[in-house]
Amino acid sequence: METDNNNTAPQLVGLLKKYGLKIAAAESLTGGMISEMITSVPGASEIIELGICSYSNRIKHEILGVSQKTLDELTEYSHRTVCEMAEGVRRMSGADIGISTSGIAGPSGGTPDKPVGTVFIGVSSSLGTRSILSPPDGNESREKVRVRAALAALALAAEEARRLSGKLPE
Amino acid sequence: METDNNNTAPQLVGLLKKYGLKIAAAESLTGGMISEMITSVPGASEIIELGICSYSNRIKHEILGVSQKTLDELTEYSHRTVCEMAEGVRRMSGADIGISTSGIAGPSGGTPDKPVGTVFIGVSSSLGTRSILSPPDGNESREKVRVRAALAALALAAEEARRLSGKLPE
Repeated sequence: METDNNNTAPQLVGLLKKYGLKIAAAESLTGGMISEMITSVPGASEIIELGICSYSNRIKHEILGVSQKTLDELTEYSHRTVCEMAEGVRRMSGADIGISTSGIAGPSGGTPDKPVGTVFIGVSSSLGTRSILSPPDGNESREKVRVRAALAALALAAEEARRLSGKLPE
Repeated sequence: METDNNNTAPQLVGLLKKYGLKIAAAESLTGGMISEMITSVPGASEIIELGICSYSNRIKHEILGVSQKTLDELTEYSHRTVCEMAEGVRRMSGADIGISTSGIAGPSGGTPDKPVGTVFIGVSSSLGTRSILSPPDGNESREKVRVRAALAALALAAEEARRLSGKLPE
């Protein structure tokens, strides 16, 4: 696994345990990779109860509660969609932190506006909901785009855990 | 990824596309690995819409609809639990095939009756719901137990797809 080559997931699990926080993931682009990386760490059941792989817009709407208006007007590849996904999985799970991904892994599906490799990541907590755009990084494979997105989501979750713990200024 | 070393996921995706079938996964033990393996294949969005990583009994009950009686009397490590998980995710998603995993990845959590490495896999379709037990296989790592479970689930799903397509006798 990619996680064998880095400590991102174990560090996040340790941080969440230390602060007594729980996380939940809503994954489109990464398709379960974030949940998998987290649950690969022994003892992860203390900090994660739910992950949703929402690979269609119907599921994003029906299960996670992403508004049809958002999907119709902005598409699934948007800041608004990942924010609503993160809020949805946090609400469903009761977790402290909701994290989400959407984007274009390729090899097809890219557009001039949003080429293959475009990644949106959302995070939601009691501090609010926000999203970041991780732009294409050269000529990446499908796998590399997905791993980049998953690791960026784990990093954003760790940042949110530190903010929630009061260790970082708002 | 483990999937780089075998063709199980690409073969399953090809089979499901060929027969026009959709799949959904409810994962405890494997924690998202099955969804991840399937969505790592380009074009997987044609055959998978939903995966649930249900890492707590509360989520198995509240989201997937596993009965509290089953969890209380048989625990999450049981044939009945994985059958209800597979039925639940199939119902939630509307997919043709629901697949599920539960078991003890370790390093802790084993009992004399159900040692580390004990894996239950469920599958549900219009043909019915059934489960298999994959016993411990020597002194495996947490990762090896999880990969064994994920690959066995993909194989069971492929078998169910062939049964559904009428290519195998009932």
